[in-house]
Amino acid sequence: MTDNDFQQAQNELLEWLAIPSISTLPERAPDVRRAAEWLHAKLEGVGFHTQILETTGHPVVYAELLNAAGAPTVLLYGHYDVQPVDPIGEWTSDPFTPVVRDGEIIARGSTDDKGQVYAHVKALEIMLRDRAALPVNLKILIEGEEEIGSPNLEEFVKAQAERLACDVVVISDGSMFAPGVPTLTTGLRGLCYLEVHVQGASKDLHSGGYGGAVANPIQALAQIIQSLRDGNGQILVSGIYDRVRAVPKVELEGWRKLPFSENQFASSVGVDALPGEPNYSVLERLWARPTLEINGIWGGFAGEGKKTVLPAKAGAKISLRLVPDQSPEEIFELVSAHIMALELPGVRVEVVKLGTGPWALVDANSPAAKLALRALERAYPGKDVAFVRSGGSIPVVSVFSQILSAPVLLVDYGLPDDGAHGPDERFTLECFKKGIEVSGYLYEELASLKV
Amino acid sequence: MTDNDFQQAQNELLEWLAIPSISTLPERAPDVRRAAEWLHAKLEGVGFHTQILETTGHPVVYAELLNAAGAPTVLLYGHYDVQPVDPIGEWTSDPFTPVVRDGEIIARGSTDDKGQVYAHVKALEIMLRDRAALPVNLKILIEGEEEIGSPNLEEFVKAQAERLACDVVVISDGSMFAPGVPTLTTGLRGLCYLEVHVQGASKDLHSGGYGGAVANPIQALAQIIQSLRDGNGQILVSGIYDRVRAVPKVELEGWRKLPFSENQFASSVGVDALPGEPNYSVLERLWARPTLEINGIWGGFAGEGKKTVLPAKAGAKISLRLVPDQSPEEIFELVSAHIMALELPGVRVEVVKLGTGPWALVDANSPAAKLALRALERAYPGKDVAFVRSGGSIPVVSVFSQILSAPVLLVDYGLPDDGAHGPDERFTLECFKKGIEVSGYLYEELASLKV
Repeated sequence: MTDNDFQQAQNELLEWLAIPSISTLPERAPDVRRAAEWLHAKLEGVGFHTQILETTGHPVVYAELLNAAGAPTVLLYGHYDVQPVDPIGEWTSDPFTPVVRDGEIIARGSTDDKGQVYAHVKALEIMLRDRAALPVNLKILIEGEEEIGSPNLEEFVKAQAERLACDVVVISDGSMFAPGVPTLTTGLRGLCYLEVHVQGASKDLHSGGYGGAVANPIQALAQIIQSLRDGNGQILVSGIYDRVRAVPKVELEGWRKLPFSENQFASSVGVDALPGEPNYSVLERLWARPTLEINGIWGGFAGEGKKTVLPAKAGAKISLRLVPDQSPEEIFELVSAHIMALELPGVRVEVVKLGTGPWALVDANSPAAKLALRALERAYPGKDVAFVRSGGSIPVVSVFSQILSAPVLLVDYGLPDDGAHGPDERFTLECFKKGIEVSGYLYEELASLKV
Repeated sequence: MTDNDFQQAQNELLEWLAIPSISTLPERAPDVRRAAEWLHAKLEGVGFHTQILETTGHPVVYAELLNAAGAPTVLLYGHYDVQPVDPIGEWTSDPFTPVVRDGEIIARGSTDDKGQVYAHVKALEIMLRDRAALPVNLKILIEGEEEIGSPNLEEFVKAQAERLACDVVVISDGSMFAPGVPTLTTGLRGLCYLEVHVQGASKDLHSGGYGGAVANPIQALAQIIQSLRDGNGQILVSGIYDRVRAVPKVELEGWRKLPFSENQFASSVGVDALPGEPNYSVLERLWARPTLEINGIWGGFAGEGKKTVLPAKAGAKISLRLVPDQSPEEIFELVSAHIMALELPGVRVEVVKLGTGPWALVDANSPAAKLALRALERAYPGKDVAFVRSGGSIPVVSVFSQILSAPVLLVDYGLPDDGAHGPDERFTLECFKKGIEVSGYLYEELASLKV
C-alpha cells in the first residue's frame, strides 16, 4: 500500500462516515439507505458484483467475486449503521463531520464499524489492482441493523443460505486487546435488552398537594433497579447465574498473562475505583460474567430550575450481557418475573423486551483460526497474539455458525478506548493502516484453508 | 355581578392566560414581563395607581388605592408567573391557547394563580364601578417569581416595608377543600429543593466493553434515592423528624370530620393504593408530615430503541415538603450530609441546593380570620367553613407575617384536582364566579377590622 493509497482510503472513509446512518432513529432511515448506496457504489467500482438487498428494515449490501476456482470461500460480515450520538454536547466536533486530528479519525461509526469494514474493502481493492485477482472467493455482507440487534439478519441468512454458503466467516467489529497487540477474539457476550415502564397517577400532580399520599413512580423505579443488582454488580435475580459456565483454566491463565493493569484501565475512563463482583478480575467480569446495566432513565422534570411535580410515570432501559450457557430468552423471563413480583403499591409496572442476542464462542484451535494467527504474526512480527474475549455482543456470530455451519473468525482492528457508542468515537490512523495490512495477509493465508 | 360582567371577566382572564409567563425558563423572560405589563394596564384601567417595580429577576406589579380614610389597609398578594408545561403531550389543548370547555377554563396558570388573582381584580373593579370607592385601603402586590421560590421577594418586601405596611394580607393561591366547601387555610408546608448529580466515567462508555467493571451512575443514583425514603414514604435521613411538631388535637378532630374519602381521593388521581407512612391518615400525611419526592430523573439514553451505553452521568431533582418546626436550611444540611456519607465507589456525587421556603401557620382565631369566616358564610349560606392546611408551600406567607407584622389570610378559590403544575390545568367557571363573590364580601367584612 502506497502513502497515496492510504491517503485516498482516509478520504473515502471520511466521506462514508459523514452519512448519519443511525439505524435506531426512524427519521434517519433515508441516511441509512444513503450509507448503503455509498458502499454499493464503492464495491461496484472495486470490481465486485454488488446488490442492495431489501429486508423489512434497513437494506443489506451484498457483494461477491467468485473467480478463485478451487480456493475456499470467505464471507466478510460487517455493518454500516451506527449508534445515536447522545450526549451530543460532549463531542468536541460534530459526529458526522469527520475529521482527522492527532492521528485519529473522529466520527460516529469510525471504529464501529465503518472504519473496520473499510480496512477490508481497501485491502481487497489493492489486491485486485495489484494482482487482478483475489486468492479466495469472496462474499461480502454488510448490514444496516447491527446497532439495533440485527432483527432481520437471521431471517435473511436463512433465506439466502445457499448464496451465502462459505468456508469461513470473517468479522472485524470489535477491538484489539491494546494498541500494538495483535488479537484474536474467541468469545462474545450475549444480550438481553428491556425497558421498564412505571405508571403512578393518571397524570402529573403537584408535589405539594399530593406528595406523601400518592406513590412516586421514580421512587418505585429506583426500588426496581436496586432490587436487580447490588452495589458490587452482583445480579439479584433468582436463577440468573444457574447456567453460567466456568472459564477453562488454560484460557484464564492466558488472560492473567495479558498486559493489563486494572489501575490503568480505571484511569483511562476517569474513575478511581472499579466496583464489581468480588473474587473476579476485571477481565473475568468483562468477558465471562453476566452483567446488568441501566442504559437510560427518565421521569418527571429534567429541565433547568425547580418544578414541584409528582410525576405520573417513569421508565428505564436495562440490558444484561450474557455468557455461556445463558439463554437470552430465559434471562428475559427471569428478570421480567423478578420485576413483576415486586410489591409496589400504587403503581403499575410493565416490562417490554426490546431485543435479545446470543453469546458466542470461537474455537481457537480450528484450522481457520490457525491461519488467522499466521496473518497476525506476519503483520506484527515477533509479537504474541492475544487470545481474548469481548464484553460486547455480535448476535450474528451464532447466526453464521449455526445456519451456514462455517467457523467464524473475529479479527478486530479497533482499540478498547475508541469510544464506540460514546462521544468522540475514533479510529486511529495506525489501526486503520494495520487493519488494511492484516486484511491482506488474512485473505492470502485463508487461501490455503482445506475445503 | 351581571352575566355580562362575568362573561367579560372570562374574556379578560383568557387573554392574560395566553401569555406564557413561565418564570423558570430563561427564554420566557420577555413573556413574563408581558404578563406583568398586561396586569399593569388592567389595574390602571380599573383605577389603581399602578407601577411595575423591578427586581434582579422578574418584575413585581404593584398597585394601590388608599382613599378609605380610617379604614384598615389590606395587602393582596398573588403571582402572575406559571409552571412549565411538561409533559406537553398530555395536554388535550395547548396550555397557552386558553379555552372554556365543559365549564372549565383550561390553561397553564388558570388556577395557579392568574385565575384566583383575577377573581380579586374583578371584584374590586365591580365595587369601584358600583360604589365609586373601596371599603378598605388596598395595596396589591403580584409577583412573577412564585413558581421559582420567590428568590427576590423577601428582599423586596424588606426594602418596601413602609410602602407595603398593612393590617392584613390576603392570598388566594391554593385550593378549597372540595367543590362547594368554603375553606380557610391555616397552614402551609415548607420546601427544600435540591438536585443530585452523579458522575461515573469521564464519558459515556460501551456497556459491552465496560459493563461489569465500571460503576453505573444511574445505579448509584437509584441507591441514593432508595437510601432517602422507604416504600412507605418514611424518610430515612437521620434527624429529619426531630423537630416535627404534633398537630393540636382539636385541629386533628376537625380534619377527621371533613368530607373526605381516601378511596375517592385515590380514584380521582387514577391509583388503586395510597402507600404512605403507617399510622397517619392521608390528610395528616399531606398537611402535617414531611415528605420527600423525586421530581425528576435523567441519565443515559432515553430515546426510542436500544442504545447499549454505560452512561457517564445521571441526576435527579429531589424536594422535601416541611412542617412546623423544621428548618429548611437545616433539612438541606441533613439530606446533603446523608447523601455525601453514602459509600458509592467509582462515582462522584454532588448535591446542589435549588431553593428553600419556610412552612407557615395561620391563627384561625384572629379577628381578621373571623371576618374572613363571615365573608365565606355570606357566600355559602348554611355551609360549614372547613379549616384545613395545605400540602403546598407559599414561602412568602412567612415573609409577610414576619416583615410586615400583619396576619395573613389564605382564602382559596381553586379545587384540589385543578391540575396545578400538571397537564390540563383548569379553573372551573363556578370557582371563578364564587371567587369574585367571596372577594367582594371579604373586602366588605375586612372594613370592620379594628386598626
